[in-house]
Amino acid sequence: MRISDLDTPAIIIDLDRMDRNLTKVADYARSHNLRLRPHTKTHKIPALGRRQVELGAVGLSVAKSTEAEVMLKSGTPDILVAYPVVGEKKLARLTEIARKANVTVSLDSMEAAKPLSRAAWAAGVEIGVLTEMDVGLHRVGVQPGADTLALARAVSTLPGLRWRGIAFYPGHIKDFSEKAKQDLATLGQALTSTVALLKANGLAPEVVSGGSTPLLWVSHTIPEMNEIRPGTYIFNDRNTILSGACSRDECAATILTTVVSVAPWRFIIDGGSKTFSSDRLSGASDVTFGEILEAPGARFHKMNEEHGFVELAGDSAHLSVGDRVHVLPNHICVAMNLHEQVYGVRGDEVVETWVVEGRGKLQ
Amino acid sequence: MRISDLDTPAIIIDLDRMDRNLTKVADYARSHNLRLRPHTKTHKIPALGRRQVELGAVGLSVAKSTEAEVMLKSGTPDILVAYPVVGEKKLARLTEIARKANVTVSLDSMEAAKPLSRAAWAAGVEIGVLTEMDVGLHRVGVQPGADTLALARAVSTLPGLRWRGIAFYPGHIKDFSEKAKQDLATLGQALTSTVALLKANGLAPEVVSGGSTPLLWVSHTIPEMNEIRPGTYIFNDRNTILSGACSRDECAATILTTVVSVAPWRFIIDGGSKTFSSDRLSGASDVTFGEILEAPGARFHKMNEEHGFVELAGDSAHLSVGDRVHVLPNHICVAMNLHEQVYGVRGDEVVETWVVEGRGKLQ
Repeated sequence: MRISDLDTPAIIIDLDRMDRNLTKVADYARSHNLRLRPHTKTHKIPALGRRQVELGAVGLSVAKSTEAEVMLKSGTPDILVAYPVVGEKKLARLTEIARKANVTVSLDSMEAAKPLSRAAWAAGVEIGVLTEMDVGLHRVGVQPGADTLALARAVSTLPGLRWRGIAFYPGHIKDFSEKAKQDLATLGQALTSTVALLKANGLAPEVVSGGSTPLLWVSHTIPEMNEIRPGTYIFNDRNTILSGACSRDECAATILTTVVSVAPWRFIIDGGSKTFSSDRLSGASDVTFGEILEAPGARFHKMNEEHGFVELAGDSAHLSVGDRVHVLPNHICVAMNLHEQVYGVRGDEVVETWVVEGRGKLQ
Repeated sequence: MRISDLDTPAIIIDLDRMDRNLTKVADYARSHNLRLRPHTKTHKIPALGRRQVELGAVGLSVAKSTEAEVMLKSGTPDILVAYPVVGEKKLARLTEIARKANVTVSLDSMEAAKPLSRAAWAAGVEIGVLTEMDVGLHRVGVQPGADTLALARAVSTLPGLRWRGIAFYPGHIKDFSEKAKQDLATLGQALTSTVALLKANGLAPEVVSGGSTPLLWVSHTIPEMNEIRPGTYIFNDRNTILSGACSRDECAATILTTVVSVAPWRFIIDGGSKTFSSDRLSGASDVTFGEILEAPGARFHKMNEEHGFVELAGDSAHLSVGDRVHVLPNHICVAMNLHEQVYGVRGDEVVETWVVEGRGKLQ
């Protein structure tokens, strides 16, 4: 099958680029003695999780218990649910998974830890726990220092659980501005002092798991961190370019669309928020939803569910109804979640068709 | 099964409210002699399409040929694909569907009409066509008047096609401000003059299909329009409230979520852009992603894929990890597209579990 045989819209993955991305990060992690635990929310495909493990990942990350179920199919021996698992049905699912692979959960409260302990103890399994630390994003996590020690100490007394260390996500650091450099220094101090405090109290962390895509290539400079959980690096996207963590040539995924309507000042493509998601470009003031590779000057500035509005600029190519264009998306993870299957290509040949098995796994 | 047995996040539909919404619009259309052709992009569930047809809809609307395939299961005798169908695979799908139900396509170019004609003629089926008219949204459509006549005339000569009339979507009119009233008057003039022009040229339109949810209840005042295609009315959402087309008590769908982390100033729910979509509130300057029914003062102001960030206001309820809250979403159509199944409830009882069969049908 050739790319021209595909119906649109369709996510197309350049396998040569993807392979280079996978190898580059695996090599980086190995050379810096960092445990690599890719977040599979980007691809949601067990075959790609398997590939990451084969290349040296210590295990995989997921956000939800249903995603963990799907990722078991990758054959990974070790899964981190990087999300507080709260609710009876999720806990039942998790203890089943813990019979088949090592399972660790990151959480930030005893209200989450106690039911997890009861479920694990009742099921006769052991579940690892990382204490989630808020290093500035103010999403989940307790504060570094005393609060982290208190939660670690309390968790380590619970039956059925094994406290393994700390986790954090520095999603508030998106670039290398002066402000970001200060935030990075603050993060380093928090890690150094918290790990020292934990050690002084007999709770030496086996795992200090963190990192983000923008900070991927400076991971080795972050003190105490010994595990990284990048996700987007497998494909990269406009957000990754903007963060400085990849070049355009390292973007492996585009979305193929068809022009369905043309006027002198604009054209409409057959993909909108249902195809790309309505995620805006992170940190950009101008609102655009993707880059049309065949019309570099054009501005993809508006979407409805099935319509992408592209304004022609002076020098952008004039396209006709039926023409196909490749779009580099803002955020590939959320786009993957919208597609039943995606296509791996080498040149013009479609050599892989992958069902996005983790799509829509919300629970 | 009770609501408390459901895993979160989950879309919950209050069936009493949904039934009232369905009946109210069916009655309105009947009393004004308007053909009702609900857009099924909101629910994406054949059983609900069947319900709409039973209540008097003349047929159903979809955006894509794969959605039409799904909606055939509703038993509807008549489907409008309200979107230019461009591409060989889509045309093949459409001619197959045309063997089982009447199919009409709205389109705005001969580049879309000619391949449709060839496909229909080759397959030995007849496909209806509505000429799409741009009445101000500048999405798809030719201009009213001479351009619409020219396209109608050209389409009506093509074998395999039957020109049936015109279609339009006044999505640029969102309220009843002075500006909007002027736009509505302009729309009326465009319809009156274009229909007169078509008739004068022997092309009396059988169908004048239009309308939008904000304009739903003034549909009978729009001249010449004889068919309406509302979608959101079955459930309604925050956007519908804001447009003035429904009350809070007419919102039938909420999203049940669990609190997974709490800090003195905020809580985090287990749903973000993967659960709600990242659609902002239409026309609102403040960025919020839903209303937490159990914490009316709180502000759901930020999302990541799996995290909803809710800022507590002075008087908002203090919630604990494990508590469940119902969220009224900004845009229910895009949220439905993210869920594998949804639940119909009466009181606390879950009485229906529907698979969202039209989810992710992009082609």
